[in-house]
Amino acid sequence: MEDKSGETVLHEAEKATTVLLVPGDPFVATTHVALRIAAEKRGIKTRIIHGASAISAVIGACGLHNYKFGKTVTVPFPENTSETPYNVIAQNKSVGLHTLCLLDLKADEQRFLSVNEAVKSLLAVEETNRKRILTTEALVVGAARVGSAAPVVKADYAGQILKYDFGGPPQSLIVPGEMHFMEVEGLIQFAGAPEELRRLAK
Amino acid sequence: MEDKSGETVLHEAEKATTVLLVPGDPFVATTHVALRIAAEKRGIKTRIIHGASAISAVIGACGLHNYKFGKTVTVPFPENTSETPYNVIAQNKSVGLHTLCLLDLKADEQRFLSVNEAVKSLLAVEETNRKRILTTEALVVGAARVGSAAPVVKADYAGQILKYDFGGPPQSLIVPGEMHFMEVEGLIQFAGAPEELRRLAK
Repeated sequence: MEDKSGETVLHEAEKATTVLLVPGDPFVATTHVALRIAAEKRGIKTRIIHGASAISAVIGACGLHNYKFGKTVTVPFPENTSETPYNVIAQNKSVGLHTLCLLDLKADEQRFLSVNEAVKSLLAVEETNRKRILTTEALVVGAARVGSAAPVVKADYAGQILKYDFGGPPQSLIVPGEMHFMEVEGLIQFAGAPEELRRLAK
Repeated sequence: MEDKSGETVLHEAEKATTVLLVPGDPFVATTHVALRIAAEKRGIKTRIIHGASAISAVIGACGLHNYKFGKTVTVPFPENTSETPYNVIAQNKSVGLHTLCLLDLKADEQRFLSVNEAVKSLLAVEETNRKRILTTEALVVGAARVGSAAPVVKADYAGQILKYDFGGPPQSLIVPGEMHFMEVEGLIQFAGAPEELRRLAK
């Protein structure tokens, strides 16, 4: 069972050198930042071995340019639905930037939000707000199992992505803002984006 | 000598399985995205082994929260000085977000921009624009050699960071926007930020 307070690992670390192994880059999760602060406050010296993170890997895998991303956001499960992801996408789009949407997960229940569910939830907010931030005609990029031997990256209109089978977790979603023509070329080559996108590119 | 067009590696890859090894996450650099597009267009199948990137590692090392970063920017060498970094920081700050500034490098000349030089160049733009985006009293975070056995992460006012010795490359700079109190705590614990910052935290 997960120890939410981190008391178990902190207790061990007070006695001997202790390793906490997590997937990805350990400090993308604010929980781990809090745990490290708690350790240092108790006089436990910490050292980090950085890992490859979905934050950079998913962006790299689809061909979009890293420096054109705005704030990252997490799309919650339907029972905790929120307008925050929609608003973050809107804010990023207003200055031409892309948005990386991490998808919620409950590791202890083996529950992972899918790209299909995330797109559905964003389209539901669009249905109410009607700011044309994410319509069924908007291009989105779904990614699954990036970094594994069998990654899937697919770019298509939201209405199509809704029906696309990405297979198992973990999955992520990207909502592009304005695209450079090399980014469009990347999405066509690496993510099977519709070729008609070329005429929209700058 | 570096092959800017990537022709050497593409030529080899047409004949046999070829590996291009680069530091960090390979597709944070748009050059590598372009090379992968060129490969796929010639029918060369590509596969990525993702690596730990400065993009997530530097943020993690200093205790700031990853999802509160806006667009990333590169600060150029003084001979190519530009107002772009200053303007990106201003745009991110206007919505409360932090900015990760990558520092320019010329690997073939073993030339790397330092945190001190980057801060100096931003202060020079402030001197002209006077929008109070980056004054000598603004808190900034410098990081050097993150991921190595001897990383240095230091948070202080820009006027102080100018004089701080970060040692060798590679180095990065972060200009924080609005900070959560846990982020302030992180900067104090991990980056030796002035303790008086606690009163500014939300």
